[in-house]
Amino acid sequence: MPAKIGKYTIELQTNPAVVGYAAVVGKKEGEGPYGKYYDQCHNDTTLGESSWERAESRLQNEAVHLALHKAGLQNTDIDCIFAGDLLNQCISSTFGLRSLDIPFLGQYGACSTMAQTLGIASLFVESGAALRAAAVTSSHFCSAERQFRYPLEYGGQRTPTAQWTATAAGSVILGARSQYLSAKIGMQAVTFGRIADFGVKDVNNMGAAMAPAAAQTLIDFFNDTGTAPQDYDLILTGDLGLVGSELLDDLMKQEGKDISPVHNDCGLMIYDREKQDAHAGGSGCGCSAAILCSAILQQMDAGQLHKVLFIGTGALMSPTSSQQGESIPGVAHLVYLKA
Amino acid sequence: MPAKIGKYTIELQTNPAVVGYAAVVGKKEGEGPYGKYYDQCHNDTTLGESSWERAESRLQNEAVHLALHKAGLQNTDIDCIFAGDLLNQCISSTFGLRSLDIPFLGQYGACSTMAQTLGIASLFVESGAALRAAAVTSSHFCSAERQFRYPLEYGGQRTPTAQWTATAAGSVILGARSQYLSAKIGMQAVTFGRIADFGVKDVNNMGAAMAPAAAQTLIDFFNDTGTAPQDYDLILTGDLGLVGSELLDDLMKQEGKDISPVHNDCGLMIYDREKQDAHAGGSGCGCSAAILCSAILQQMDAGQLHKVLFIGTGALMSPTSSQQGESIPGVAHLVYLKA
Repeated sequence: MPAKIGKYTIELQTNPAVVGYAAVVGKKEGEGPYGKYYDQCHNDTTLGESSWERAESRLQNEAVHLALHKAGLQNTDIDCIFAGDLLNQCISSTFGLRSLDIPFLGQYGACSTMAQTLGIASLFVESGAALRAAAVTSSHFCSAERQFRYPLEYGGQRTPTAQWTATAAGSVILGARSQYLSAKIGMQAVTFGRIADFGVKDVNNMGAAMAPAAAQTLIDFFNDTGTAPQDYDLILTGDLGLVGSELLDDLMKQEGKDISPVHNDCGLMIYDREKQDAHAGGSGCGCSAAILCSAILQQMDAGQLHKVLFIGTGALMSPTSSQQGESIPGVAHLVYLKA
Repeated sequence: MPAKIGKYTIELQTNPAVVGYAAVVGKKEGEGPYGKYYDQCHNDTTLGESSWERAESRLQNEAVHLALHKAGLQNTDIDCIFAGDLLNQCISSTFGLRSLDIPFLGQYGACSTMAQTLGIASLFVESGAALRAAAVTSSHFCSAERQFRYPLEYGGQRTPTAQWTATAAGSVILGARSQYLSAKIGMQAVTFGRIADFGVKDVNNMGAAMAPAAAQTLIDFFNDTGTAPQDYDLILTGDLGLVGSELLDDLMKQEGKDISPVHNDCGLMIYDREKQDAHAGGSGCGCSAAILCSAILQQMDAGQLHKVLFIGTGALMSPTSSQQGESIPGVAHLVYLKA
């Protein structure tokens, strides 16, 4: 049974097991520093499909199928799937997963969605509402650019603070601990975040819009659990990029909680920012999903990482809200994984 | 603790209590057959805001505040809020609720979102992950038209099968049964739906695209629970409209389960279709939310209705997917409420 600790944190007393995971990425991501960790790298970022949207749907579909395969499971073994992406009406998820015939619960938390899906899936498994549940998110550079910024053909110039939307998807399969006593990685706790809006309006600097939300959720978690940054091997945000990561470290230092020795950010990891022209780093629902579902979970399985806080950070604006002069609300959800 | 019954249904053994609910609507809805049941009717559908999107955010904010007030609660009493709407990146929810300071989990299920938010909120309360949780959805005719169809100024003609997006929001507050022993209405069970896609491509006939999903989820529920349509006082879909409702009744008859004596649809209830020029009826996340959170819950509280199946139905396409020639995937989620 889940149990509240403090005001915002939910302890998962049975530690739902991570029983499968997979990451599928595009060419640029495959050429990045973590290329060797992904299950599948597509050199053709259309994936042979006739639109970027269909390509993104396929990324998501492949990530789920690979995760199921690695877990030795079939779609019929999964009680429900939590999925999300950045596209309008979340069509990457609905079209990507419609053939799976699994009860489907669409989630929207912008780039925080991987942590959100994983957190809710954990609670479903912990409570017995699901014996096994799946979480998956995706993003695609080309579908995101034309929806949120400019058509690719326009060739708009990027600002130094802009992040590069990753072409990637990641999926995790969770199972009830009673069925997977020997699974190495377990879900320990979840802290769902409150919306924080500090008035940032620059859609080319979303890291700055999301950093206060990440700080708020981390502080909630540390306060609720009575723990400190040094109690963890890795505090992994996704995706604040360069500007947001530095801001988060500063905000946490102001609170007397220095996370910098153990902090890394999926947006800073996914590309070689110097060689790959990724400016402030990567972003998108698929960025943090792919990093988590490859290198991080593999290193946990291998005993190289033990206690990991994964914090998904989302910028909850739309092109319409920005055109109307609104600021960018941020949100951050945290899941605590332990090997 | 929640317990699986059959393959798809989750029984809520503690029966989380409905402790507050409210519906806020626009002028046309206020003039409809259920006008007297709503908590608040706005004659100015801008709600005094400078954009339709801001007006919709305010509908949602007001619905939550009214539901909290009626429950004698404050925002700080709520452990998490599940919210959704139809706008790109769900901005009605994020901007409408950002001031509440409640852990926020954005949901997207198109017009099925009220059932989805209510179902997940029920499980959070049932499992102890939340002592109290809120569910809220909204839609606005003007924000939806310009996003999904045409700018209002264009004056596009509507087809007879088209549904009218309701300007409305509804919110429910759930509480743990242990804290609300005398609350009249309890959540009994939840069945989350699988995506069904029968190849319908007409975005002006979404009822037909959603009816197969509604039939599938209803059949799953009846099979899992060993019950039949006559065991319930009301089977309330939202929102199939005229075309989809007739289709659902036919599909269910083919399965030997005649729901027509107890079936009604929020899209058929919200407007006087003859006098109000609403063609096939109402639709939108706010339509089913407003009908449920007004007349239905009030009649349950008054002892006029006892056993109600509420089935939210969603059409999971986007303008982009339709322009790319895709069909419309449907989904339906069911919650069983008992007074």
